[in-house]
Amino acid sequence: MTEPTEHAADDVQQHLREVQEMLARNRLVEDLVHRQEDMPRHQLVEQLVQKQNDAALQERLDSLHPADIAFILEALPLDDRRFVWDLVKAERDGEILIEVSDAVRESLIEVMDPAELRAAAQSLDADELADLAPDLPAEVIEDVFQALDVTERERLRSAMSYPEDSVGALMSFDIASVREEVRLEAVLRYLRRFEALPDHTDALYVVDREGHLKGLLSLETLLLNDPERPVGEVMLREGVISFEPEDDAGEAAQAFERYDLISAPVIDSQRRVIGRLTVDDMVDFIREEGEAVLLARAGLRESEDVFASVWDSVRNRWSWLAINLVTAFIASRVIGLFEDSIEKLVALAALMPIVAGIGGNSGNQTITMIVRASATGQVAPDAASRLLRKELGVSTVNGLVWGGLLGVLAGVLYGNLALGAVMTAAMTLNLLLAATAGVMIPMLRIRLGADPALGSSVLITALTDSGGFLIFLGLATLFLL
Amino acid sequence: MTEPTEHAADDVQQHLREVQEMLARNRLVEDLVHRQEDMPRHQLVEQLVQKQNDAALQERLDSLHPADIAFILEALPLDDRRFVWDLVKAERDGEILIEVSDAVRESLIEVMDPAELRAAAQSLDADELADLAPDLPAEVIEDVFQALDVTERERLRSAMSYPEDSVGALMSFDIASVREEVRLEAVLRYLRRFEALPDHTDALYVVDREGHLKGLLSLETLLLNDPERPVGEVMLREGVISFEPEDDAGEAAQAFERYDLISAPVIDSQRRVIGRLTVDDMVDFIREEGEAVLLARAGLRESEDVFASVWDSVRNRWSWLAINLVTAFIASRVIGLFEDSIEKLVALAALMPIVAGIGGNSGNQTITMIVRASATGQVAPDAASRLLRKELGVSTVNGLVWGGLLGVLAGVLYGNLALGAVMTAAMTLNLLLAATAGVMIPMLRIRLGADPALGSSVLITALTDSGGFLIFLGLATLFLL
Repeated sequence: MTEPTEHAADDVQQHLREVQEMLARNRLVEDLVHRQEDMPRHQLVEQLVQKQNDAALQERLDSLHPADIAFILEALPLDDRRFVWDLVKAERDGEILIEVSDAVRESLIEVMDPAELRAAAQSLDADELADLAPDLPAEVIEDVFQALDVTERERLRSAMSYPEDSVGALMSFDIASVREEVRLEAVLRYLRRFEALPDHTDALYVVDREGHLKGLLSLETLLLNDPERPVGEVMLREGVISFEPEDDAGEAAQAFERYDLISAPVIDSQRRVIGRLTVDDMVDFIREEGEAVLLARAGLRESEDVFASVWDSVRNRWSWLAINLVTAFIASRVIGLFEDSIEKLVALAALMPIVAGIGGNSGNQTITMIVRASATGQVAPDAASRLLRKELGVSTVNGLVWGGLLGVLAGVLYGNLALGAVMTAAMTLNLLLAATAGVMIPMLRIRLGADPALGSSVLITALTDSGGFLIFLGLATLFLL
Repeated sequence: MTEPTEHAADDVQQHLREVQEMLARNRLVEDLVHRQEDMPRHQLVEQLVQKQNDAALQERLDSLHPADIAFILEALPLDDRRFVWDLVKAERDGEILIEVSDAVRESLIEVMDPAELRAAAQSLDADELADLAPDLPAEVIEDVFQALDVTERERLRSAMSYPEDSVGALMSFDIASVREEVRLEAVLRYLRRFEALPDHTDALYVVDREGHLKGLLSLETLLLNDPERPVGEVMLREGVISFEPEDDAGEAAQAFERYDLISAPVIDSQRRVIGRLTVDDMVDFIREEGEAVLLARAGLRESEDVFASVWDSVRNRWSWLAINLVTAFIASRVIGLFEDSIEKLVALAALMPIVAGIGGNSGNQTITMIVRASATGQVAPDAASRLLRKELGVSTVNGLVWGGLLGVLAGVLYGNLALGAVMTAAMTLNLLLAATAGVMIPMLRIRLGADPALGSSVLITALTDSGGFLIFLGLATLFLL
């Protein structure tokens, strides 16, 4: 495997710029030659210069880490991306496909023929293959599956059988294990027979003859202790953190974060070691999870390829816009109920978005805080009344201060102090509504065992919009007209 | 250090429940005894039972991992939190203060006297101390500083001198290094003299007499190779990823993620090793960064202690609400310009929030996508025109489809087809405005070297609200009245 070059943080940007320059040079040659169409043999010249150029680009790509190539592919527009992809050595296709984002992976697989896909897939481990499989055509999967040996086939089948966000879907199968009777000296000699350890090996798993987990022998323990001592005497027996394949990957990631783990064994119900989780997968998981929340907030179905076609982008964003239009339409109908009032006092039309807006913002703050805290498991279902009291307090303060300020402003602006008073009252009431909904929506979801974050922002905004219009226009109709 | 118990993911919840039950039992005793006020010596009984209870709780806490205690403290309301904090052994205070969130840390430090704080601080390493220092009273810092030896004092000074999100602020100072002339066998013997390696040691740093970095000797290489070979022959020389203390922590975290690193050396400008970065700090950084974006989106200044006082919460959310009110007020004044039109055709008041809303949503989608892509460095400043063309395409499709649908709906509802046509036109134009601003705001920021995410959501919403009202009411005034 090619090593990443030194001082990586800046370098990947540098690599990207270089590749972009090489691509630009190619286009320049093309342009130059085409502009002189009368020149004889222009095609030949073009081909010659380009060939040289391509060779240089290919050489550059060969020297890069697969993660860097993945980065470059993601940053290039579709045509350049496919051009570069063609130049990448076929035997590296697999490891690069694993690294790129889902959307970009699709755009690469589209241009590969079944033979190329088969070759790429065959270069991967079972757990990597399981990640890639859903994006591959059925006949390619079938071929690859047939070509695997029995162990690998069994591993692939098992990796693919676990749901996406489970430990089983993220675990790898390569394990280094030892027996507790042997002395450290024998372990040291045993290890020298290998060419490499599984990635991120920070400990060897101590198992019995049937593969049951007995303890952990960290490399540190192995290195620091007297080689004459047996494994069983120095290994970690108590407090070994292990997971089962059905465990939630998010909880595993939290455990990795909390206990600063590098790797952890995955065991079956009989405590037999069947795989391991490593911190690199957990890091990816944490990053992706954070992004998913962010994307969901903005109503994007998945991480979008910035160079996706218009149609792909429309599909990715469609559902949220549709929901938003439905809630906006409902709010519009609430306003429609009060058209007579607005006709009599048109200032209401100008002021009502302020009342609705502050409610939405405040409600979103409350819900974000509770969703965040509950994501880390810190909000017990019975904390609702305590949280509600606090949020109502915050809303009362904000309502009196900001509502009071805006009320005075509106009263002076329209020369109507009663209108100002209604404004203050409506803003305070809508903030109290926002606080109540901001606490109750996620808490009810938690109690029902549902995801408290899902669509919470849409729900609360819909409620504070329609509610805000109803409260403000209702109060105005009652007291001002 | 106490080891975390097995199967950690579920267990921390279990620990929390146990502690909560013990606390509830205490309160129950208090209640029971107080209700029988006439009973003689009730105070004595209460004290006796509580003492027993507290001892059990203390024992439970002693058995827990510091990260688990931190979790429990964060999940408890203020009074229970301080009660539990008092039961925690003083010598563990330091490591627990490092683990809790900033807001909760403040609530704990408030109730500690200078002597306790000094003791807690003195149990920490220089890099941990540097994290804690900003929250400590000046006189405590001064005392702790005086008590350190020269090396530690220098380390603390250097750790505190780097900005918060730099590599220097996150690096630790414990390093295990070897010289390239020695044989692996000598390294193995040398290591056995230590009781422990620095946390997360996956490689030893190979340095010369002056401490210049020459290469890396991974534990794997050390274990797998013939002990007779010298370090210089087997160590990794090329492609060692290192950082400088001034480097951005976010870029370092991306490099850890991209190249699956466990630890990396931090070097000064002469390539002398001065510290190391480890993956556990990077994991925390990635998690915190993801949260910061989420919180900023909702206008929360920092991660809020869910049990914070009303006043602390108000302060945390204040600035965003103020900004929001200013932009809402501007939008309100835009509507104010068209009060005559609304008086003549009151349907405009009911329909205008729909036009503004869809623009805000669509603009937020665009900006989220671009901010996300640019955070990973995948959007070149010169990609603006290409991205703009795509986003305008998406907006045109959405405007014609959703705008058309809503236009027909509005036209039928109000029996005014011209109104429907204006609605469709306004929605499409506001979507085009949203697309333009959604691309240009972050791209301009990137070109100016600013953070593209900061307040982007407020800006775009303000623009599409005011713009949407202006476009819709303006078109209506021109064509309908």
